[in-house]
Amino acid sequence: MKKLFALFITVFALFIGFSVEAKVPKYVFLFIGDGLSFPQRMAAQEYFRLTAKRELLINKLPVQSATTTRAADQFITDSAASGTAIACGEKTAVGRIGLDVSGKRRLESVAEVAKKNGRKVAIITSVTLNHATPASFYGHQLKRNMGYELGLDLIASGFDYFGGGGISQNTGRNKKQPDVYALAARAGYKVCRNPDEVRAFTPGKGKVIAIGAPGALPYALDKQKNDLRLADFVRQAISHCDNPNGFFMMCEGGAIDWLCHANDAAGTFNEVLEFDDAVQVACDFYQKHPDDTLIVITGDHETGGLTLGFAGTKYKSYYEVLAGQKYSVVKLNEVMPKTCTSWLKMREFITSVSGLIFNDGTPGAKDPRRLSVKEERALEKEWRKAYPKGKLNAKAGAAFVRSIVRLINNKAGLAWSTGAHTALPVNTSAIGVGADKFSGVIDNTDIAKKLKHAVVPVSKNWWQW
Amino acid sequence: MKKLFALFITVFALFIGFSVEAKVPKYVFLFIGDGLSFPQRMAAQEYFRLTAKRELLINKLPVQSATTTRAADQFITDSAASGTAIACGEKTAVGRIGLDVSGKRRLESVAEVAKKNGRKVAIITSVTLNHATPASFYGHQLKRNMGYELGLDLIASGFDYFGGGGISQNTGRNKKQPDVYALAARAGYKVCRNPDEVRAFTPGKGKVIAIGAPGALPYALDKQKNDLRLADFVRQAISHCDNPNGFFMMCEGGAIDWLCHANDAAGTFNEVLEFDDAVQVACDFYQKHPDDTLIVITGDHETGGLTLGFAGTKYKSYYEVLAGQKYSVVKLNEVMPKTCTSWLKMREFITSVSGLIFNDGTPGAKDPRRLSVKEERALEKEWRKAYPKGKLNAKAGAAFVRSIVRLINNKAGLAWSTGAHTALPVNTSAIGVGADKFSGVIDNTDIAKKLKHAVVPVSKNWWQW
Repeated sequence: MKKLFALFITVFALFIGFSVEAKVPKYVFLFIGDGLSFPQRMAAQEYFRLTAKRELLINKLPVQSATTTRAADQFITDSAASGTAIACGEKTAVGRIGLDVSGKRRLESVAEVAKKNGRKVAIITSVTLNHATPASFYGHQLKRNMGYELGLDLIASGFDYFGGGGISQNTGRNKKQPDVYALAARAGYKVCRNPDEVRAFTPGKGKVIAIGAPGALPYALDKQKNDLRLADFVRQAISHCDNPNGFFMMCEGGAIDWLCHANDAAGTFNEVLEFDDAVQVACDFYQKHPDDTLIVITGDHETGGLTLGFAGTKYKSYYEVLAGQKYSVVKLNEVMPKTCTSWLKMREFITSVSGLIFNDGTPGAKDPRRLSVKEERALEKEWRKAYPKGKLNAKAGAAFVRSIVRLINNKAGLAWSTGAHTALPVNTSAIGVGADKFSGVIDNTDIAKKLKHAVVPVSKNWWQW
Repeated sequence: MKKLFALFITVFALFIGFSVEAKVPKYVFLFIGDGLSFPQRMAAQEYFRLTAKRELLINKLPVQSATTTRAADQFITDSAASGTAIACGEKTAVGRIGLDVSGKRRLESVAEVAKKNGRKVAIITSVTLNHATPASFYGHQLKRNMGYELGLDLIASGFDYFGGGGISQNTGRNKKQPDVYALAARAGYKVCRNPDEVRAFTPGKGKVIAIGAPGALPYALDKQKNDLRLADFVRQAISHCDNPNGFFMMCEGGAIDWLCHANDAAGTFNEVLEFDDAVQVACDFYQKHPDDTLIVITGDHETGGLTLGFAGTKYKSYYEVLAGQKYSVVKLNEVMPKTCTSWLKMREFITSVSGLIFNDGTPGAKDPRRLSVKEERALEKEWRKAYPKGKLNAKAGAAFVRSIVRLINNKAGLAWSTGAHTALPVNTSAIGVGADKFSGVIDNTDIAKKLKHAVVPVSKNWWQW
């Protein structure tokens, strides 16, 4: 009897409470860290705690849960199947964009639902705009590599803001198709094709494609002063899309995945920070509109099999070693000397770009950055292969650079098990109106299912979820 | 004004609701999977989904969150520092049991608080009873390897039920101290020293030490018919400890960690299932007492750097390959032939205990269990080292066995990065009265802090948390 009374009073109060207070969030942000899972988030946090006394915002949000990622056809998913699951709420086969597993049925994304409901829509990424993750929110193609067709889907979406990297295959795989950028302009898009043009754009009216680089944006670790940051696009997209009917914004940290594929921890962690900075912009906006904003952060899968421990360092971690790495592994390839006939000179160069220290007979052998004689011999052997007759060989040189980066990682106490993805669950975090709906263990399809209820017209009540 | 009204009515209802309904849980279960984190839970789930069409209960509970594990003195923790954090709610140095980081201040565990509050207390583990994790709930010693002293602490605790493996160093490191078992009997403990004696014990009165083996219990994958299971101890402990003042029970799946240290996936996953079966007993009890029971499941750290992907298998997983492994890596060492002069005979033996298939020229090359010629050559080389002059060499033989197990793991699409622990967060799950207090990201010390409020006298109200 007591129980029944308690139940009654609770249900009654919840009903009253929700009717008066709760409502649909006017502003809905979805952040996707490509390749971002627990290892990347935890290790990046520890790295920046040590080197910058900074905590990651994404790890401090009130809702934190685990999300399973499997594809319809295999346990280890890819960004297309997982992007489609997060965007549309249905499992599909690896490689598919916005289509069901048969490839015949078109799936509707949360971005499309938002647009239909009168909201403005923004799609942002640090890599190319027609890459698998962003494409999952507007595209419908059998294969993720159909970049040109996805470019046409982008235009057809009519979404209000596209920002980040460029559109790949913009004249088709045969380079003979009508230019996607020209087609976009004809369809009413303002097209900004470099950082200056993006900065000069006045947000507010019309539709825009704002790209900071022809391909992906420069990696965070390699950025120059004039380069745009992910946070810049989020800021501009908010200005552009704010309106009485609300908006839905998807922002992808796409380069996290790329540098995890390359097993580059320092590069990866700087991309995680770049992503965290972009989330910060949304959280600042949330502080101003706490009753109208929902922010959800997730990953699409883990990449690289990153582990926060390594056989060689046992129970010790020396993440500060990573601070010695000056460039991403990709940029390192570009700055390698074209010729080199002296191992001593190469040692100096390696120290200057990696922070690794070679044994010169001086004390200080306990420095975690210091290579053992065995490690130096192995590296020297690779250097000989990379510089046959003193001239840099592209393929062997790339392997040499990978070995340098692997050494930095291992010295820090980190290891990677693959250049591909893994099936580890990812971390989903949330704050704001309805954030609690994202707590507990959820599947990636649940994110779209829940978000589709959040992007209904703003006049609707939240309890209709 | 509307907001204020909503707030008021919600607070009022919550107050009424909690006052009438909510209360302190009479029965509190804490399960700790040693070395159990997201990779172990996700991979074990996929393995048993494929091979036994069974889902893991621990992954289905309503509350699922991520828990950070760092020790006071290093990022990668151990079972002593993490056990103490989970048991007592304070960070300490690696190796310490129930003492603060200075080693001078005694910390109070949730088990000790429960006892003080009139509850009965049960401590269960699949490894030895004075190993770091169980010892953290009753012990107070500078170093985890002080097994004899921890044995004396065990007796001094006066806890009502100890079940699982034996007490190590029971006559001291010098084997000349008074026997801990005899001291326990003198202190009023009924001591059962084998499975038959444990089964013959009639639960209810007094204090008991119920051990199923002199050391750790046999590994789940190696269990014989007469061996006791972790679930048996939980069942017996419930019978023994059920009383009007309630109980606190800690049950550790300690062997998960041991087999992760050995990088044995099949062995590990069977230990996870053994652990899940033990949780099932508590959940069955919860079904009968849903308003009086709280069950919390966590891990103390990740062990092995397990990744759900491997460079050699790329995006594919073949976990069914693991089903071919007949014994744990430890037992495999015992069953290896003592002599062997023929590689063909050794191949047959390997196939019989591992399920791995060697190339005999027949079709079926795509079978994931099939070794490549290169893999066979590498294994044959190790066999030659393991059997100098045809006789098994213990050390090289162990390396040979590890290579066989590594091959099984890699063929399945799994990799390990270390024989030590890693700093990956662990997964905390909960169900029952107050389970929602364990949602969101939490630190391992938060578990003790929250549980100490749950083990107050059962007459107290839950809202006093």
